[in-house]
Amino acid sequence: MESRLALIPALEPVREGIEDADRLLRSIVGSTEEPLRSMFNHLLGGGKRLRMALVIAVGRMFDAGGPRFAKLAAAVEMLHTATLIHDDVVDDASMRRGREALHSVWSVGAAVLAGDFLLARAVALMAELDSSRILRIFTGALCEMSVGEVRQTLVDGGKHHSREDYLRCAKAKTASLLEASTETAGILAGVTELQIAALGQYGRELGLAYQITDDVLDLIGDEEKLGKAAGSDLRQGLVTLPVLHYLDAVPNGGAVGTVLDGLTDEAHVKAAVEAVVSSGAVEASLAEARSHVLRGREALACMPDNPFRQILWSLSGYVINREF
Amino acid sequence: MESRLALIPALEPVREGIEDADRLLRSIVGSTEEPLRSMFNHLLGGGKRLRMALVIAVGRMFDAGGPRFAKLAAAVEMLHTATLIHDDVVDDASMRRGREALHSVWSVGAAVLAGDFLLARAVALMAELDSSRILRIFTGALCEMSVGEVRQTLVDGGKHHSREDYLRCAKAKTASLLEASTETAGILAGVTELQIAALGQYGRELGLAYQITDDVLDLIGDEEKLGKAAGSDLRQGLVTLPVLHYLDAVPNGGAVGTVLDGLTDEAHVKAAVEAVVSSGAVEASLAEARSHVLRGREALACMPDNPFRQILWSLSGYVINREF
Repeated sequence: MESRLALIPALEPVREGIEDADRLLRSIVGSTEEPLRSMFNHLLGGGKRLRMALVIAVGRMFDAGGPRFAKLAAAVEMLHTATLIHDDVVDDASMRRGREALHSVWSVGAAVLAGDFLLARAVALMAELDSSRILRIFTGALCEMSVGEVRQTLVDGGKHHSREDYLRCAKAKTASLLEASTETAGILAGVTELQIAALGQYGRELGLAYQITDDVLDLIGDEEKLGKAAGSDLRQGLVTLPVLHYLDAVPNGGAVGTVLDGLTDEAHVKAAVEAVVSSGAVEASLAEARSHVLRGREALACMPDNPFRQILWSLSGYVINREF
Repeated sequence: MESRLALIPALEPVREGIEDADRLLRSIVGSTEEPLRSMFNHLLGGGKRLRMALVIAVGRMFDAGGPRFAKLAAAVEMLHTATLIHDDVVDDASMRRGREALHSVWSVGAAVLAGDFLLARAVALMAELDSSRILRIFTGALCEMSVGEVRQTLVDGGKHHSREDYLRCAKAKTASLLEASTETAGILAGVTELQIAALGQYGRELGLAYQITDDVLDLIGDEEKLGKAAGSDLRQGLVTLPVLHYLDAVPNGGAVGTVLDGLTDEAHVKAAVEAVVSSGAVEASLAEARSHVLRGREALACMPDNPFRQILWSLSGYVINREF
C-alpha cells in the first residue's frame, strides 16, 4: 500500500504534505470493513489528488500546514471520490480512472452505499476542524453538485442550449468543489476575507478550465490514457463546449446532429468527433479554458509571492495542458 | 401543502414544535428545483415524523425549544429520508410508505442524486447549530448505517447466523439514527453528560424495539396498512428475529428453509410465513421488543418528571403496538 504517489512535477515541493494527507486517507479507508476497503482501494489507486494538492499548496503559501490541513485535504479527496462513485452510477459509466467503475465490479447497491459511507466519513473528518463555516461551504458545494447533476442527466438530458447553460453546469459539477477546496484552505490558514474570496475565484476558474479541457479531451484525447473511448460525451447525448462551438458554425447540426438524434453507433460517433475537431471548435474551447486560467492567475496577485504561489500558478497551467 | 400532520395521539402536546420543524423541512424541499421537489413531496407526504417528534419532545422535557430544535428535527428527518431513498435503491424495494419507491417512479440515478442532495442539505442545516459534537454523532451514525447495510446486503446476504448478528444489524440500520436523535437533542438542550448518555440509551432501545416490531409486522401486518406484501423479508432471504426464533425450534429449517433455499413463489412464502407465525416466534420476538422498551424507559428515570417525559414513555409503547 505504501507506494510513492505519482504526482505531477510542479507538486514536488509540497509532496510531503500531500503524502501526509494521503496516508491519513489510506488509513481511514484501510480501516473499513470488506468489501468497502477493496472498493476504495480500487478507486484510490488511480487519481491525481488535485484537490488534496490544492489544499496543501494553499496552506504552505500562507506558511500553514500540519494535521489540520491533512484532515481537510483527505476529507476533500474523500468527498470528491464519493461524488465520482455516485456519478458513475447515475451515468452508468463503465470506466473510471482507467479501471472498471465500482458499480460494474461490485453492484449498483454497493456503489451507492460506498459513496454514502465516504461522504459521511468525509463530513465527520471535516467536523473535527470545528469550523461550521468550512462545513457550510462544502455541504453547499455538495448540494450544488447534486442539483447540477440532476439538471444535466434528468432535466435537459445534457442538451445545453447555450454557453450559459454549459458554464452553469461546469460550475456545479466541477468548479464548486475546487472552489470550496481553495476557499476553505484559506479559511483554515486564517487569511483575510479578500484573500479567501480570491482563493475561491482561483479554484472556481481552475475548475472551469478543468471541465472544458475534460470535454476537449473526450474528443481528441488518447483513449488509452483517458481510460475510455473518444466521443463518449456525444454518444451519451451530452452537448459540451466544443460541440456548442461546432453548432454555432453548423446550425443544422451536421454529423453531430445525427448522433444527437440517436444514431450512436461507432461510425456515426467517429464522424461527428472528426467534424467537431476539424471545425476549429477545439481551439476555440481551449482558448476559453486559457482565459479561465488567466482569470484564476489574476486572483493570485493578492497572495504572498513565494514558491508555493508559483505551484498554484503552474497547476492552473497543468490543468489545460494535461493529457488525461 | 399546509395540511395538518397526521400525528399519533400521544404527540398532541408537542404538535406545535413538530409542525414548526415540518414547516422548515417543507420550505427547504419546496425551494429545490424540479424534479427534486416533486420527488421529496412524494415521499414526505407519508412518514410518521418519529425522529422529528423525539427531538422536539426531548427538548420540551428540558424546557427547551425554538428554531434550533426545529433545525435539528428537520435535519434528522431529512437524513432519515435520504437513507430510505438510498436503501430502496440498494434493496430494489418497489414500495415505500404505501407509495411507489422514488427510483421506480423516476430512476435509480434520480434517486441516488435526490438522496445525496438531502444528505448534504441536512448536514448543512446541522452545521448551522455550530456544534461539531452533534455533527460527529450524526456522521458516525450515517457511517454505521451504510456499513450495516453493506454487511446485510452484500456480505452475508441478510442470512444472520445468530441473534447477535441480527441485533448488530438492527442497531446499525435503525437504532443508530434514533440514538443520535435523542442524544443530540439532549446536547442541544444543554443537559448533563449522564442525561445525554441516558437519552442515547432511550433512543437506542426504542430503535431496537422498532426494528423487531417492523420485522414482526412484515409477517403478520395488514398488507394494505404496511403498503407491501407480507413475508417480503423472507422473500428477499432476510433472516429476521422471528425467523431466528423459528429456526431455533425447527433446526432443519422446515417451510422457511425452502424459501431461504430459493423457492420464493407466493405459495412457498405464504407457507413459510404461516409456519413462523404458528410457531410462537412472533410472541417470543415481541417479548424481546418489550424488554427493549422497558430498558429504554429505565433510562428515563434520570429525566425531569413532567408531561413531556410521559410522551417519551408513551412513544416507546407506541413503537411496539403500532400497525404499520
